[in-house]
Amino acid sequence: MGKLTHFEDGRPRMVDVSDKAATLRVATAEATVLLTPEAVEALQEGGVGKGDPLGVAQLAGIMAAKKTGELIPLCHPLPITGVEVRLWFEPQEARVRVVATVKTKAETGVEMEALTACAVAALTVYDMLKAVSKGLEITGLRLLHKSGGRSGEWRRE
Amino acid sequence: MGKLTHFEDGRPRMVDVSDKAATLRVATAEATVLLTPEAVEALQEGGVGKGDPLGVAQLAGIMAAKKTGELIPLCHPLPITGVEVRLWFEPQEARVRVVATVKTKAETGVEMEALTACAVAALTVYDMLKAVSKGLEITGLRLLHKSGGRSGEWRRE
Amino acid sequence: MGKLTHFEDGRPRMVDVSDKAATLRVATAEATVLLTPEAVEALQEGGVGKGDPLGVAQLAGIMAAKKTGELIPLCHPLPITGVEVRLWFEPQEARVRVVATVKTKAETGVEMEALTACAVAALTVYDMLKAVSKGLEITGLRLLHKSGGRSGEWRRE
Amino acid sequence: MGKLTHFEDGRPRMVDVSDKAATLRVATAEATVLLTPEAVEALQEGGVGKGDPLGVAQLAGIMAAKKTGELIPLCHPLPITGVEVRLWFEPQEARVRVVATVKTKAETGVEMEALTACAVAALTVYDMLKAVSKGLEITGLRLLHKSGGRSGEWRRE
Amino acid sequence: MGKLTHFEDGRPRMVDVSDKAATLRVATAEATVLLTPEAVEALQEGGVGKGDPLGVAQLAGIMAAKKTGELIPLCHPLPITGVEVRLWFEPQEARVRVVATVKTKAETGVEMEALTACAVAALTVYDMLKAVSKGLEITGLRLLHKSGGRSGEWRRE
Amino acid sequence: MGKLTHFEDGRPRMVDVSDKAATLRVATAEATVLLTPEAVEALQEGGVGKGDPLGVAQLAGIMAAKKTGELIPLCHPLPITGVEVRLWFEPQEARVRVVATVKTKAETGVEMEALTACAVAALTVYDMLKAVSKGLEITGLRLLHKSGGRSGEWRRE
Repeated sequence: MGKLTHFEDGRPRMVDVSDKAATLRVATAEATVLLTPEAVEALQEGGVGKGDPLGVAQLAGIMAAKKTGELIPLCHPLPITGVEVRLWFEPQEARVRVVATVKTKAETGVEMEALTACAVAALTVYDMLKAVSKGLEITGLRLLHKSGGRSGEWRRE
Repeated sequence: MGKLTHFEDGRPRMVDVSDKAATLRVATAEATVLLTPEAVEALQEGGVGKGDPLGVAQLAGIMAAKKTGELIPLCHPLPITGVEVRLWFEPQEARVRVVATVKTKAETGVEMEALTACAVAALTVYDMLKAVSKGLEITGLRLLHKSGGRSGEWRRE
Repeated sequence: MGKLTHFEDGRPRMVDVSDKAATLRVATAEATVLLTPEAVEALQEGGVGKGDPLGVAQLAGIMAAKKTGELIPLCHPLPITGVEVRLWFEPQEARVRVVATVKTKAETGVEMEALTACAVAALTVYDMLKAVSKGLEITGLRLLHKSGGRSGEWRRE
Repeated sequence: MGKLTHFEDGRPRMVDVSDKAATLRVATAEATVLLTPEAVEALQEGGVGKGDPLGVAQLAGIMAAKKTGELIPLCHPLPITGVEVRLWFEPQEARVRVVATVKTKAETGVEMEALTACAVAALTVYDMLKAVSKGLEITGLRLLHKSGGRSGEWRRE
Repeated sequence: MGKLTHFEDGRPRMVDVSDKAATLRVATAEATVLLTPEAVEALQEGGVGKGDPLGVAQLAGIMAAKKTGELIPLCHPLPITGVEVRLWFEPQEARVRVVATVKTKAETGVEMEALTACAVAALTVYDMLKAVSKGLEITGLRLLHKSGGRSGEWRRE
Repeated sequence: MGKLTHFEDGRPRMVDVSDKAATLRVATAEATVLLTPEAVEALQEGGVGKGDPLGVAQLAGIMAAKKTGELIPLCHPLPITGVEVRLWFEPQEARVRVVATVKTKAETGVEMEALTACAVAALTVYDMLKAVSKGLEITGLRLLHKSGGRSGEWRRE
């Protein structure tokens, strides 16, 4: 099964990283929630003061990063050393943007942790707006940057 | 905070659904993983026989539907009565499509469960291909259809 | 072991509630975090605007209510139908108060869910202030009110 | 937001501890369950022989220490290297005392793990006695001692 | 895939039980831990007084029953209404026996919950004895009896 | 309580391993599912092509290894660095064999992780076949080999 390291002889496995060194790894990912006009309006009304919806989504993203190893079957459980999740409501573009950065000192990287944080933060935005409009869509969930490890630095162009 | 039912006086809450009837609810969602040429090639080599990557992603999606209440802060824990997740590798379009349908008999719907199943299945595809190519992107994560409950049937047009 | 229904012949068990009817159950609990002067000051500086510490603690409390069955060994897993958690910072009394109300339609009550929500919300307040002052203390974690079920209504006097 | 390290520009985050050294950290916390006369009597009848309620609570506390990172939103997941939880039933004072000590070799401390172990052990005592008396109260949940890390040793006076 | 209801067109799924009635379901399972002479001796020394190893295993089994839906990919999450786990140390036969009974009112049965409770209780016995002897073996993990549901009663002969 | 290191003064504890060195640890375990003739037949019909039942069980075993610390009360949470689970359907012998190998770099070994992976993989085989035949039995769940740590290498003879 050639290039798929998660497979050996056609069987999935959690890749053995015992021989790798535990070094600093950082990954940043992003996602976008496309809003309907009703959702934009609801967020504009509701987005002032404490307890706003983006705050709930941000916390959901941070907590989800810690659950990545439970969700993604072949991911290693990693000792995360830092998580930042940010959300921006851009009413002009009718969207919410999410960016998450995760750090660890481990034998393998945290790309999946950053992507999972973005996915769950975006889903939480969806959850809070779904009574207003079911037509929302999550798009552009992807890696922006990673550093550390044998494959070195990578940046989306 | 007007139309955001998850909020009362600016504070998030798990909406009280005690007065609603437990009825059949169904929701279907979808997502798409956009592949790079290297990822298409790797999947073509690895996608034959048992243990293929889409099988891993499918199971990850089913299991994630059961974790929705843990991931999305204001979601109710629901007694899911059925989950189907399907993935299609479309090499011509350089993509993997995911569709998930979730059912329950409960006081509230399973839109978030169907969306979460799609998101985690798509992330699992990403995970298995990330050693080949980091440039994948998850897009079009959205609700296709729901039925049951006070708001009745909804279908994306 | 007389009055301890969780035990039979000296062995703990999850009490069989199969014969009980699933009816509406409500429980309200409270807790208090006693603050030091440094903690009061830090909360006063930090407690304005979105993302304030009490918002984090509130969400932690809501999510913890859903984890009660995992944490308390002999608790039944319950289909929670509503959760509200509120926190008040009372600088004059140098304390934060927490009150949580949980609802379900089930064969047994949600006292432990309300208490667990308060405990985790209070612990989260502690966590966010521990860099400022380790001398905080959580006190008065107790049930305020419950209704529903064979034992009927109970209210702390 | 001045002294609240869990916040940056008003947004909560999991503080980046990548630059810190992984060293031995120890924390000890305590809690007290205040009993009613009926609860004292029930524990006296039930507290002999194996399977007694305090044994259940002790195990619940040990297992809860491992769940701290899931419960407290901004806590780091830590590789716990040891947990001890002890409970004393003091019928004269009509109370149960809980003391928990947690150890790790990590970049940050285990105060929250020790406090969470005490909280869940105390809640478990409450759970097993609530059929006898709902008037119990958990009090004095606080840190007793910590060592290790940049802030060094701290002991409650 | 003929008789395997968990599969449709070669793909696993969580079988749709929405059309079934929620009725009382009971299942009882058993397992046996075969001991070495060193393990028998250690249990005989350690098995007196509170906190004995079988008490830890019993509680682990009860808690594991609640985690079945997380562990077994295609299992439905079920509202368990009662769990009993018993362990007997039989030094003459050099073994520990485990029997677990689980109840629910649901659309599908609790065989897997009873089996999972036995498996985890037996593994916990192993864990506590493994410093004494690694040669233990878990055997005879199987269903003894089930009742309720369309397939009615079943008893191992 | 003599030789039971999990106990001190009759109370269970998570043994303090802070003083041990984090070194490479490997453990391999096995289990066998004894099949009935109906189960052999169902597996023969269903076992061809992708998505076969053993693939589901294999993934369940890998994911369960990561949950060991949650299931076994006194187990340390470990940073697993590799997991392999293999299943063989042996129709002639009317059985399915499971073998799991787990690796870590930690202060304590991964015997329980390998055993838990085998147990959950075997239970998943049971789950998928239970509609066909309830008479299956899991047997021979035991350690085959371990290396690393103070007690060195051990191999079942």
